[in-house]
Formats: sequence, C-alpha cells, structure tokens
Amino acid sequence: MAAGGLSLSALTAAVSERAGGKLAARIEGDAGRRVQSVATLSAATGAQLSFLANPRYRGEALASGAGAIALAPAEAAALRDAARSDAVLVVVDQPYAWFALATQLLHPAAAAATGIDVAAHVAAGALVDGSASVGPGACIGAGARVGAGAVIGAGAVLGAGAVLGDESWLHPNAVVLDHCEIGARCIVHSGAVIGADGFGFAPFEGRWIKIPQVGRVVIEDDVEIGANTTVDRGTMGDTRIERGAKLDNQIQIAHNCVIGAYTVIAGCVGIAGSARIGAHCQIGGAAMIAGHLTIADGCAISPGTLVAASIDQPGQYTGYFPMMPHRDWERSAAIIRQLEELRRRVRELEAAQRRATP
Amino acid sequence: MAAGGLSLSALTAAVSERAGGKLAARIEGDAGRRVQSVATLSAATGAQLSFLANPRYRGEALASGAGAIALAPAEAAALRDAARSDAVLVVVDQPYAWFALATQLLHPAAAAATGIDVAAHVAAGALVDGSASVGPGACIGAGARVGAGAVIGAGAVLGAGAVLGDESWLHPNAVVLDHCEIGARCIVHSGAVIGADGFGFAPFEGRWIKIPQVGRVVIEDDVEIGANTTVDRGTMGDTRIERGAKLDNQIQIAHNCVIGAYTVIAGCVGIAGSARIGAHCQIGGAAMIAGHLTIADGCAISPGTLVAASIDQPGQYTGYFPMMPHRDWERSAAIIRQLEELRRRVRELEAAQRRATP
Amino acid sequence: MAAGGLSLSALTAAVSERAGGKLAARIEGDAGRRVQSVATLSAATGAQLSFLANPRYRGEALASGAGAIALAPAEAAALRDAARSDAVLVVVDQPYAWFALATQLLHPAAAAATGIDVAAHVAAGALVDGSASVGPGACIGAGARVGAGAVIGAGAVLGAGAVLGDESWLHPNAVVLDHCEIGARCIVHSGAVIGADGFGFAPFEGRWIKIPQVGRVVIEDDVEIGANTTVDRGTMGDTRIERGAKLDNQIQIAHNCVIGAYTVIAGCVGIAGSARIGAHCQIGGAAMIAGHLTIADGCAISPGTLVAASIDQPGQYTGYFPMMPHRDWERSAAIIRQLEELRRRVRELEAAQRRATP
Repeated sequence: MAAGGLSLSALTAAVSERAGGKLAARIEGDAGRRVQSVATLSAATGAQLSFLANPRYRGEALASGAGAIALAPAEAAALRDAARSDAVLVVVDQPYAWFALATQLLHPAAAAATGIDVAAHVAAGALVDGSASVGPGACIGAGARVGAGAVIGAGAVLGAGAVLGDESWLHPNAVVLDHCEIGARCIVHSGAVIGADGFGFAPFEGRWIKIPQVGRVVIEDDVEIGANTTVDRGTMGDTRIERGAKLDNQIQIAHNCVIGAYTVIAGCVGIAGSARIGAHCQIGGAAMIAGHLTIADGCAISPGTLVAASIDQPGQYTGYFPMMPHRDWERSAAIIRQLEELRRRVRELEAAQRRATP
Repeated sequence: MAAGGLSLSALTAAVSERAGGKLAARIEGDAGRRVQSVATLSAATGAQLSFLANPRYRGEALASGAGAIALAPAEAAALRDAARSDAVLVVVDQPYAWFALATQLLHPAAAAATGIDVAAHVAAGALVDGSASVGPGACIGAGARVGAGAVIGAGAVLGAGAVLGDESWLHPNAVVLDHCEIGARCIVHSGAVIGADGFGFAPFEGRWIKIPQVGRVVIEDDVEIGANTTVDRGTMGDTRIERGAKLDNQIQIAHNCVIGAYTVIAGCVGIAGSARIGAHCQIGGAAMIAGHLTIADGCAISPGTLVAASIDQPGQYTGYFPMMPHRDWERSAAIIRQLEELRRRVRELEAAQRRATP
Repeated sequence: MAAGGLSLSALTAAVSERAGGKLAARIEGDAGRRVQSVATLSAATGAQLSFLANPRYRGEALASGAGAIALAPAEAAALRDAARSDAVLVVVDQPYAWFALATQLLHPAAAAATGIDVAAHVAAGALVDGSASVGPGACIGAGARVGAGAVIGAGAVLGAGAVLGDESWLHPNAVVLDHCEIGARCIVHSGAVIGADGFGFAPFEGRWIKIPQVGRVVIEDDVEIGANTTVDRGTMGDTRIERGAKLDNQIQIAHNCVIGAYTVIAGCVGIAGSARIGAHCQIGGAAMIAGHLTIADGCAISPGTLVAASIDQPGQYTGYFPMMPHRDWERSAAIIRQLEELRRRVRELEAAQRRATP
C-alpha cells in the first residue's frame, strides 16, 4: 500500500484500471479523502474503507464510522435520504467486485524475499526463475521448473519434473508431487497435496493389487486450492482443474476428475474418480459426488448433498436430512424405516374406499 | 514419571493438588502400592492403574488384573460385595476426571530438548524464549514470538509476526501462518493449518476476483487443535477459538467463525464462514454447520447433522438419514421422492371420508 | 521399465511370476509385439497396452488404437467376431488384476536415491538401513528404525522410536509420530499423520482435562494410507490397521479403532473411537461410523451413510437422503418434519374405516 494510503480518486482510478476499464465508480463527497485499509461496516474507522452489498446491512452502514463505503446506486440513495453524511460514498454498479479489487490494492500480499533461501533444497537440474522466491526448508526436485515471480513457502515441496507457473504461490508445507503442473497466478494453500496416487486396486485372491497411477494433475491458470485439500493424479491420463476454478479447504478430488472452469467448491467436498464437473458450477460444503458421472455447466449443489447420478440440466439440487430436535428426529427416523408399510396402508385405505363407493 | 512409579498415596495427593484441592480420593487397600502406568481394565497388570466409570464394564473390573482401579463410591461397593480383593480401589466421586489427571502424572509428555535445533530456521527478528524447544526443519518467520516452555516440532512453521504462547506445542509439520496468535498451553497437532486464507471471491464477468483475507486467527488459552484441522483467517477482523475449546482432526473452520469457550468439536466437522458457535457446545463428528448463523450455548449437535439455520435454545439436534439394508433403503428413498404424492392421497382419503360421514 | 518396453510374451511371463504362477494369459496375435506403457482404450497407441474389463466399454475397445488389450475370454470372442485385428489380445480370466501387475512392470516407481540426503536430519541413535533412502528436509527421531529399501520423502517426519518397515514409503511431508509402527511394503502418502493424540478429555467443572494418549498406532504389512488421512494413537493400547487394508485420502481413524485385513475405505470417511471394522469390508466415501461398535467381516457401507450401531451380518447398508431438484426437496423435507402427523392421519382413516365396516 502506498504510504499514507490512497485517495479515493486514486483508488477508483486504480480499480477501474485493474478491471479493464470497467467498474467505474462515482464518488459522492470528498474524493481526496485517503483510506489505508478495509474493515467491516461495524468496525471501520475514518481511514478505512467498507462496503454495503446486501440491503439487510443498511442499518450498519448508517451507523458506520467508515471513511468511505462502496455501494450500489440504490443503496446510495437510501443512505443519502437518511442524511448519512460522514462517509464518502463510492457508488458503483457492482460494489462487491469493486471492493474486492480495492482490497487487493490496499492490502497487497507481503512481498516475499526474492531468491532461494540458503536453507532451501533445490535439486540439480531444477530451473528456478531469478525473480522467484523459495523459502527455508522448501524442497524442489530434479527437473522441476519455477516461473517468474512464483513463491514457494517454507517447507513446501515441488516434486521432480513438476511445474509451478508464473506468479503462483505454494504456501508453507504444501506439496506438489512429481510431474504435476500448476499454471500461472495459482495459489496452493498450506497442507494441500497435489498429485498423490489415485486410489486404484484390482482384487485378486482376497487381497488388493495396486494399480500404479501414471497420470498427472494439471491445474490451469488462476486456480486456488485450499489448505489440506487433496487432488490425486490420474490412473492413466490426467486429473484436471480448469482455469479460474476455486477450491476451498479439506476437499478431496479423486483421480481423473475434471473440474470445469470457474467452478467454485466449498470446504469438505469429496469428488470420486472420473467425475466430470461442468464449468461455472457451485458445489456446497460437504457435498459428495460419486464417480464416473457428469454434472452439467451451471449447476448448484446444496451443502451436504450426495450426488449419485449424472445431472444434465442446470439448476439447484439438494438432498440432506432436515435437522430437528433429537426426539422429533427419532420419531421421524422410525417412520422412515417403515415408509413402505405406511404406503401399503394408504393403498389399502384406497382400495377399501373404492369398494365402498362403486 | 518418577522412577519406579508412584505410590497410590502419593498419586492421590498429587492429583488433588492438580485439581486445586478437589477430587479427593479414598484408598481402599494398600495405599503404598506403586503404579507405573495406566491400562484398560482388561489389559492392566499389577503395576498398572485402571478405571471404571461406566457400570457396563463392571464385569471387566471384577476380572481385571489391575493393581489399582479408580471408581465411584457406588461401584466400589459393588466390587467389594463381589469379594474382589486384588486391586486397590481408589474411590472418588469423579473417577474419569481423577484418572485423567493421574494419567498426566504417570505419563508426562516426553521432554523436548530445550533450545533451537541447529537444523531449525529462525528468521532474524524472531523472539524465541530461552526455555522453548524448536526442532529440526522447523521455520520461524520474522517478528514471530515463541513463549516460555513452548515446543515447535520438526518441520512445523510459525509465520512472520505470529505468536505461540507459553507452554504451547506445535507438533511436527503443523503450520501457523503470518500474524496469527496462539495462546498459552495450546496444542496444535501435526498437519493442522492455522491462518490460511478464507474462501472469499467476488463474481465479476463470469470469473472470481479474490478478496484478500486481511484478518487473523486468534486462539485463546488451553485450546487443542487436531491433526490436519484447518482454521482460516478472517476476511476483515479475526477468526476466534475461545479458551478451553477442543477440536478433533480433519475439521474445517472457515473465516470469521467464533467457537465458544469449552466447546468440543469431533472429527470431520465443517463450519462455514461467520458462524458463531456458543460456549459448552458439543458438535458430533461430520456435522456440517452453515455460515452466518448462531448456535446457542450448551447445544449438542448429533453426528452427521447439517445445521442450516440458527439455534437459539440449548438441546440436542439431529438430522441424518437412518441406515438400512440397501434394498430397504432403495424402497424408502423411492417413497421419499414421492412423499408429496403420498400426502395428497391421504388428503383425498380424508376428503372422501368427510363426504361419506356427514 | 526395460528400454524399448517389453514384448507381450515377456510381459505375460513376468506377470504370471508376480502372481505366483497364476493369471496365466493366452496371447492372440504377435506375442513379440513390444509395449512400453499403459493407456486407456481411447488414448492408447500402438506401443501401449490397455484393458477391457467391463462390457460397456466394448465399443471403445473396437475403436482403440492400442497395441495390445488385456481382456476376458468372452470379450476376446466378441472382439474377434467384430473382425478387430490391430490389437494383440491378451486373454486372461481376470484381466483387471493382470493389467494391474502389468502396469507395475511397465511403470515401476521412480528409483529413489539410496542413502541419506545431506539435508536430512537424522537423530543420533536412529537406525537407517543402508539401502533406504531419506530425502532432503526429512527428520528421523532418536531410536527410530528404517528398514531395507524404505523411502522417506522430502520433509517427512518419522518420530522417536518409530518404525518404518522394509520397502515402505513415507511420501513428502507425511508424519509418523513417536513409537508408531509401520509394517513392510506400506505406502503413507503426503500429508498423512499417523499417531497424533486421540481426542480424549474428561469433563471437570465446566472445562476439559486432557487424557494423555499413551498408546500407539500399529500398521501391518501391505497397507496404503492416503494423502492427508489421519490415524490417531490409542488412549491405552493401540490403534491398529491390519494387513492389506487400503485407505484413501482425507480419512479420519480415531483412537483404538481396529481396521480389519484387506478392508478398503474410500475418501473422506470418519471412524470414531474404538470402532472395530471387520476384514474385507468396503466403506464408501464420506461414510461416518460411530464409536464403540463392531462391523462384521464382508460388509459394504454405501457412500454418505452414517453407521450408528453395530452390524453383525455381511451385506450392503445404506442411509443417505436422495438428491432432488431443490424445490422438490423443500417439499419433501417439510413433509419429513411432519411424518408423525401424516402417520396419525392414516391411523385415523383406518379407525374410521373400521367403524364404517364392522
């Protein structure tokens, strides 16, 4: 961040530039006011920027001590009518996207020390760009390539022949195994494991013969992989995460899956082998997706839902047991065990009724 | 452990001291008998201590070869009546708590070598107390602080500006990222990741703009964090785990959650962003809790339950599908897909009945 | 792999030798054809081996460019009738098991450099076999033992007094904690944590007293443990994974569980404390198994199923909510909350009918 923060006029110009000329904002109030950081509406003070994207927080906006608030035109009008005058209003059609870029400008990632730490372990034959950063304890295998501006944190591992693209980050103790490829501008968080063996065994005489997993993981540009998430290498052929997909923590992606571009997957999701998830999908937390199926572009899967068959139409799909006080659940669960009996009784009543009313 | 173990009289005195004068125990039998370690009722031998807290294991207590058994007064009477005479009985109102402290005394944690291992990597400007222990391969960032008696295991990472309180442990390969704070007497198990980025993106023209996560994780005193559990840093403001909370393995705590004091969370639980869990709650394994909701103090959530809305009354709440033989489940599931149809048929029967009996 | 690959006659002989003289295959076509690697039916080219184990892929086999295809006699006949002539057919009763062994022969694991890397950290008193490989950044504790041909990857940790058996692998950043034992020919994938403390606390005056976990984890021969899977040490006594069991990624095995021989557990499964899973079971992804119960040998648990009570008969057991379009689910869920009311109405209809038809 520029020392002393940025004036709102400078910030709006910089955001618009990052957005390719879009996200133009109109400033209502002192465009020269400087902001230094971001905060929530309730916590923000005069040198801080906040945002209002959901009308239910309008009350918090009215009471906020923020120096500036980004918000949509309709909300700006509402605040103006309420004679709210302390905050400068940054009026923009998509305030949440605008705020995200403004936060990037006000809170740039801490610059990593350029170069290879003396306590890093780089195998002979690895190619590390001179502008990359490799932390202490990090290990880079033979034949690996690390792109310009890439950052490898303490204790992270990049296997033999693996590739980390330009400006991508491996956070501390993340692991990318041999021959896997990570694109540009990706983020792999701590504890994530990219390229462990897929789970493949052939039964033989009561035991299991391991099937070597000879494929790779290929992660395209602009992908984020959460902490302790695992993405297994393909059995034959690759597991692929397409550009712009975002994966939260504690996710399991099995061998030979394809995760479509710009799809977002919340925490604790599991996706079994060879599933193909479309582009622009949203998978809720702890959803579980069976293997060898296809989910169409643009699907939303609710949290906690088990997807056991392909979905070929966009839409929202749900399947979890509704929560109840425990005693109610016990009764509900008992009836569910006897639903067939209940249906039979209804059928008998219907038959009796038909006999009674000829 | 004292060489040769401890006599039961010394052990009961030491437990009571640890319990602040509470947990006074009465010894029935030879108070000078020495015990060296703990074991289950079925495995224990004469130099071992065991416990009986659940009457269903009374038979095992009667058959046990343990040198001493901690148990409640009522159980002691039952054992006495059965002429059980080999074991010394340690009679105490709360035998499980007594046994926990006795185990701590008989099995103290292996002392870690004091000081910084020559193969550890400590950045300039980090403050490591002289009584702390830092293992080989561990990395401590600039400006980090490590308290008295704290232990950082092999390969663990403490980020720049992060704090590890007195007598707290980071087990091997655990990660605490920049500027997060861990209180005193905490335990962070291997593979846990504290302070990775929360999952926050703003949609913009079909892609996702990352919202920098500028908050921290703050973990208060006496908290335990299980292996491979993840606790994300706040977007703005902090994610907080309050004092005395205990988290098992493979848990995901998203950005800006608050976990109340003394709450226990079993393995594989996921808690989405900005959820506030009360104090003294018990969250069962694999429960999933949606974001932006509140759970009252003293709630129990059953395993496998999805909590989709706030809970404002203490109590036990449940919601999982009861298990059945697969064929029964197939029929049950088919009827559940047609529950609305079943209800309609009941309504028609009721209407017909009303017409028939005017 | 032998340079230039292997001829099919050499390959079939080698597979049969690995299988103890079983899996004899008959070659239809040029037994001298050389194959260098494996690929799927759709991707394979002339120097590659593929397989057909499921009749639904027969069309892909007919169109495949593979140099050789392993398949069962019945499928071979079908392909022959279709005048498929390019691929040499390897006809064998169990083509999937044959193919698994053939893949092992064509794709042997990359040989790790024998010896201890100069950047590894081996405590005094650890015994590392001269044929073992220890990577950079790996840490081996005092008194640990590493068997012949074992491989410890970059950044992996083997605790004090722990044992890694002959030809077993710890992949990068895997952790095996103090005094745990891993048998021969095991694979522990990256990020797995073996031997963290079990989750045991005694309640006392509103807080939780930690119960030291003084048992171990014992993993028998030929076990595979997936990436980021956790297996906790026993409270007293051991947690045990019996020979030949295979565990996928992101699994949680709590203290004092026993996982039976040759049981396979898919990703994201959680198993609570002291559960005993039989031999030759198959546990589907994200299934959750409560503690202190027993599952009989040969059970199959469907994905997403919560097992809350013991199972004493082999069979398949299921319990997950079927997925629906969200609007349908909302209606279904509402009725499930009122199932008791629905059953009452059926009872009233039945009573009315009995009154009407004496």
